Amino acid sequence: MRRAFELAGHGPATGVNPQVGCIILNGHGETLSEGWHRGAGSRHAEVDALAKLAPGAARGSTAVVTLEPCNHVGRTGPCAQALIDAGVARVIYSVSDPGKHSCGGADRLRAAGIEVQGGVIVEQGETFLGDWLVAARLGRPFVTLKWASSLDGRAAATDGSSRWITGAAARLDVHRRRAARDTILVGTGTVLADDPALTARNEDGGLLARQPVPVVVGRRALPTSAALFAHPKQPLFFDGLDLPALLADLHGQGLRSVFIEGGPTLASAFVAAALVDEYLIYLAPTLIGGPRLVLGDIGVSAIGEQRRLSIQSLDRLGDDVLIVARPQPAST
Amino acid sequence: MRRAFELAGHGPATGVNPQVGCIILNGHGETLSEGWHRGAGSRHAEVDALAKLAPGAARGSTAVVTLEPCNHVGRTGPCAQALIDAGVARVIYSVSDPGKHSCGGADRLRAAGIEVQGGVIVEQGETFLGDWLVAARLGRPFVTLKWASSLDGRAAATDGSSRWITGAAARLDVHRRRAARDTILVGTGTVLADDPALTARNEDGGLLARQPVPVVVGRRALPTSAALFAHPKQPLFFDGLDLPALLADLHGQGLRSVFIEGGPTLASAFVAAALVDEYLIYLAPTLIGGPRLVLGDIGVSAIGEQRRLSIQSLDRLGDDVLIVARPQPAST
Ligand SMILES: NC(=O)c1ccc[n+]([C@@H]2O[C@H](COP(=O)([O-])OP(=O)(O)OC[C@H]3O[C@@H](n4cnc5c(N)ncnc54)[C@H](OP(=O)(O)O)[C@@H]3O)[C@@H](O)[C@H]2O)c1
Ligand SMILES: NC(=O)c1ccc[n+]([C@@H]2O[C@H](COP(=O)([O-])OP(=O)(O)OC[C@H]3O[C@@H](n4cnc5c(N)ncnc54)[C@H](OP(=O)(O)O)[C@@H]3O)[C@@H](O)[C@H]2O)c1
Repeated sequence: MRRAFELAGHGPATGVNPQVGCIILNGHGETLSEGWHRGAGSRHAEVDALAKLAPGAARGSTAVVTLEPCNHVGRTGPCAQALIDAGVARVIYSVSDPGKHSCGGADRLRAAGIEVQGGVIVEQGETFLGDWLVAARLGRPFVTLKWASSLDGRAAATDGSSRWITGAAARLDVHRRRAARDTILVGTGTVLADDPALTARNEDGGLLARQPVPVVVGRRALPTSAALFAHPKQPLFFDGLDLPALLADLHGQGLRSVFIEGGPTLASAFVAAALVDEYLIYLAPTLIGGPRLVLGDIGVSAIGEQRRLSIQSLDRLGDDVLIVARPQPAST
Repeated sequence: MRRAFELAGHGPATGVNPQVGCIILNGHGETLSEGWHRGAGSRHAEVDALAKLAPGAARGSTAVVTLEPCNHVGRTGPCAQALIDAGVARVIYSVSDPGKHSCGGADRLRAAGIEVQGGVIVEQGETFLGDWLVAARLGRPFVTLKWASSLDGRAAATDGSSRWITGAAARLDVHRRRAARDTILVGTGTVLADDPALTARNEDGGLLARQPVPVVVGRRALPTSAALFAHPKQPLFFDGLDLPALLADLHGQGLRSVFIEGGPTLASAFVAAALVDEYLIYLAPTLIGGPRLVLGDIGVSAIGEQRRLSIQSLDRLGDDVLIVARPQPAST
């Protein structure tokens, strides 16, 4: 299975499809062939491995695959059927297929009399599939909301100035996390007020190797001189009237994660719609007061309706504090 | 000196005067007499110790005293002069007298030819004198501002409901800290909205042994049925127009520390006036949004004017987080 994960790693780590690896073994545990998935539209790992064998050579063999063989007729046929047709006797996989349309492969295999064992080193499998798995389970990208505020919850001073509330260590941490996400999303208000570059940079201001796709939400026009037009990735634009549709669109483009960087109006809309999966709250040891809040109204009128989170981690970053939190499942 | 601190501990730990102990030793290091201060209006420790000796018996002796002998003619004469008159040859003390009117005792002793050594186990001395020393140096009570908020800086939901934002562990911590302070201070707004008891209680709701004096600030009338009128300590009332005068009044009554429990209007006034020495910020892992902020305007219009704090400690209390912070000295 570890070798299968190595093979999976050859495929692309972004896009709508997961990285999957497959090995076909004979009765003595000797490798007959190996395959992996090279991205949307290309052969799935199981089919890739089978295709390397002579007809009939897989009869009675064991297939070791990192993800449950799919049961879905997409741009490629269902892998479960391909394994049945090849006469494979035994299938061992790690992570179950979370897809609405693609799951059920194990059942189809069992129904065909094949011995099936799932959940092998499943924790390593889940870690390996990371964002893809979460996004597949949610049916949309994984949404992170980040803000930086004073201890009294302000994102800027009364005049709108906000550079800087947090220190260098916190800002560097933000850039590192930007680079790990597929998209970075802001409202037109933030673009018009701050003209952010929306790139992931190192301490010298140089671009990091991986860059998120900039996504701007809102109907107002932006000046063509806006810094985000110089972003190495082509920006995407949405009117933002339907946030679930926006997320579905990004997911359909193979974007697995969204990093919301503000501002308060857009952030509040995502919180109110319960579309945030993870909060990164950078708190600076400072007080600002006044009207520039990190969040506006989120639809909570009585205390019983407050949005409870659970804190995943609490750390000091230079003089600042980083709280990572996730929504608590509703208690009713 | 350690024995002198033991003696000091016999005196009262509250009120305008510090706890002080004194030992008179002969040339062989043998104790001739011991004394301590029993509170405002009674003899100071040095005079107490000298009074136990026959006239002339202290000649050539060494006085060991926990606080620099005072130079101040109050309700009792200056201790420095009493030591000079008694013919003491040597004075050893721990903490210097921080009082504007009472300091200078060491100089007066030296001018009279007495050998003087200060600063002996001064750290233990400062810890022992704690609140009194801080209040004496500030010339007013030590001011702690506490609030409990959501991660987005809200103290209540839109309809004003706020029970509960923080959990049981955080609330118990607040009660323990109330008991350690001389006064608990709230605005009329909080009394009218919440009708708080302003007592320090244990987990069963029983009263703790030590209770802060309740102080209400504001000009509005309060119903005689208000819970605070049942407080074991007699409440004090101030109109709040002059906060420094309010603090000076409390200090003059021998109250060394103030624990501000809100609400937002009064808290903001103290922050704006730079009269807060310590912040206790209880953050609950929840989001509330809306208009009920922990702080309103504090006079910060541009980011360069933000009130920087330094974090003394960061702890988890049950599900909540407690940040203890103090103002950073202005950097200009
Ligand atoms: N401290 C921080 O972490 C941080 C981060 C970012 C920004 N900021 C500050 O935030 C300020 C900008 O605030 P802002 O609230 O105007 O910015 P914003 O949230 O970036 O933009 C608000 C705009 O987003 C658009 N939008 C799109 N979909 C929406 C939806 N479903 N619900 C609501 N709005 C939607 C609307 O644009 P249209 O009107 O064009 O349709 C709306 O006017 C700046 O001062 C900036 O410095 C602070
Ligand atoms: N989460 C928390 O930690 C917490 C703690 C306490 C309260 N609260 C909430 O806060 C709300 C009450 O808020 P609030 O702001 O009305 O209460 P507040 O700050 O307790 O009271 C405001 C009043 O204080 C008086 N005041 C006295 N001196 C003042 C000065 N120098 N500057 C300004 N005001 C001065 C004024 O009273 P006069 O008009 O009478 O002169 C003013 O109206 C309640 O909903 C309560 O639940 C939350």
